[in-house]
Amino acid sequence: MKKNLSPISDIGEFNLIDRLKKILPAVEDPGLLVNIGDDTAVIQVNEQEVWLITCDIQIEGRHFRLENTSFYNLGKRSMAVNLSDIAAMGGQPAFALVSLGLSPDMTVNNYDSLFEGMRDQLAEFNAHIIGGNLAKSEKNLIIDITMLGKAKPNQFVQRKGASFGDQIYVTGTLGDSGAGLALLEKFGREYPRKYEPLIQAHVSPKPRIDIGKKLAEKHLATAMIDISDGVASDLYHTCKMNKVGAVIDFEKLPFSTDIPEVVHLCKLDREDLLLHSGEDYELLFTVAPDNSPNLLKQLSRDFSIPISHIGTIFPPEDGYKIHDGRGIKRNLNPAGWDHFKKQN
Amino acid sequence: MKKNLSPISDIGEFNLIDRLKKILPAVEDPGLLVNIGDDTAVIQVNEQEVWLITCDIQIEGRHFRLENTSFYNLGKRSMAVNLSDIAAMGGQPAFALVSLGLSPDMTVNNYDSLFEGMRDQLAEFNAHIIGGNLAKSEKNLIIDITMLGKAKPNQFVQRKGASFGDQIYVTGTLGDSGAGLALLEKFGREYPRKYEPLIQAHVSPKPRIDIGKKLAEKHLATAMIDISDGVASDLYHTCKMNKVGAVIDFEKLPFSTDIPEVVHLCKLDREDLLLHSGEDYELLFTVAPDNSPNLLKQLSRDFSIPISHIGTIFPPEDGYKIHDGRGIKRNLNPAGWDHFKKQN
Repeated sequence: MKKNLSPISDIGEFNLIDRLKKILPAVEDPGLLVNIGDDTAVIQVNEQEVWLITCDIQIEGRHFRLENTSFYNLGKRSMAVNLSDIAAMGGQPAFALVSLGLSPDMTVNNYDSLFEGMRDQLAEFNAHIIGGNLAKSEKNLIIDITMLGKAKPNQFVQRKGASFGDQIYVTGTLGDSGAGLALLEKFGREYPRKYEPLIQAHVSPKPRIDIGKKLAEKHLATAMIDISDGVASDLYHTCKMNKVGAVIDFEKLPFSTDIPEVVHLCKLDREDLLLHSGEDYELLFTVAPDNSPNLLKQLSRDFSIPISHIGTIFPPEDGYKIHDGRGIKRNLNPAGWDHFKKQN
Repeated sequence: MKKNLSPISDIGEFNLIDRLKKILPAVEDPGLLVNIGDDTAVIQVNEQEVWLITCDIQIEGRHFRLENTSFYNLGKRSMAVNLSDIAAMGGQPAFALVSLGLSPDMTVNNYDSLFEGMRDQLAEFNAHIIGGNLAKSEKNLIIDITMLGKAKPNQFVQRKGASFGDQIYVTGTLGDSGAGLALLEKFGREYPRKYEPLIQAHVSPKPRIDIGKKLAEKHLATAMIDISDGVASDLYHTCKMNKVGAVIDFEKLPFSTDIPEVVHLCKLDREDLLLHSGEDYELLFTVAPDNSPNLLKQLSRDFSIPISHIGTIFPPEDGYKIHDGRGIKRNLNPAGWDHFKKQN
């Protein structure tokens, strides 16, 4: 590689990941079905089973603040973030490994609570911690989790797979986690109790394992990703990977009833919140146009989770657009969360 | 769990891991052959194959200092540490996932070099990076690696398995990494060039994959661990797990020819260096008494790596002892590296 002495903040997260294509060699292993660039790697381990493997690092101050959560909820959340990647492939979680960087003045009780939260979040899906590693961190708490899930070889969903005409859907509602965070930043733990569901969406998001599995089993989703960086950004990366364009309809983006109030209260921008706030951990997926929307309605009823049609996949020359609230079609700015870009 | 409000530094790393036995539920999965407490977890994935899974977090300032190494060597080392855990089970490395916490002022070239080092270390064993995750760290570089290895179901070696009469062996030499670190701390990068092998042992340790695999395949090792915390500490934990005692012979501990000179130069304690300095990543293993030492001699010749007999496993009531340099048998202090205890 040519020497590049600029700071990594100049090129940003996705360019950094792109560089690995040049640095790392191609892997000639017939068992490796999905390599870097999806929610998880996928490895076929026998005729009936593939394994999904992902890891995610969360650093105090960047990904969470201890004043906004309990250690128990932090444990749940750190597992949920990884479970969500398994959900986005349509898999069943199985095992987790936990690497922690702990500050020595953390209490034993904090440590216990963190693991109790992790354990309870995994137990919802019959998954277990089977290993890990403890180290000392001078200052910030660091949580890195590796998650292993399982799926059938013909029943997992990648980010690749969307084609022209596919319809775009999301589970749940958008912006809840961002609104919850805004409330915590404004009120601290003294937030108005009526907004508890938004707070919960932020401190303890629900991974969409069951609905993800069903979308995969029924071969409904042609491509799928979980929304961690904001729907605009995650859809944009999916489009880029599939070499397609998309138009989404702002009026169709689903949101909770309390959102307009919180937007006003916390002086948020509604469009920004719904399109660009991350960490909702809902599923964003595409469905072939000949698939009946009734199947999705049934799924939504079965799991009591909204599934909303928000747009359509177009050829790449149509670009990446949004019908905004005034019925005007304009370019959609994919800018979501980038861990390295200076604007963050 | 009863609330314990003391800081984790009061109870230390091994007690923290022990608490997980009470917090985490038993796992009823017939495929999970080895759970928390060994160098890796072990999962049977088909009739011919088990998977070995481990992860390890390394934090700048605690596990490495950027002034002592290049990003390339740091990449190699961070993989080597994880490969060593696969070696300690007698496995063949296959895949790695890399989670990084990067400071935004790191250069793109630093980033490239880090991955090039990782790639090259893995390439020695035909293993590959297949996934990971990038995040921003305010200050310290954080490297968390998950390593997947493979073995045959009846051919992996656990920490459990040592019994009375077994003979204790180590590969390579002890204290090289500790001596290398002492030289770097005294001289910085201007260390006398004749000590390059000791420096290399610290900045780019060699995982003992090939010899570990052979010890497993030939069913020579009854129990095995890699030396990360110092031979005294790692042997002690192996003894405790196996409910056995041990006597080691100080005069038999293998060391490089330059060690006495460096001990003098850097004002080190030779016994402390050989027994308690960590990060050698050599293999420590036990062999049944009826196994001919000639097999090990042959193995040592085949791989051009010393294999030294350093002691014997005894019943637990015989305790944990050392024959010191003056021929006196005394209790061996297991104190090695503990990430949380205050003395560190």
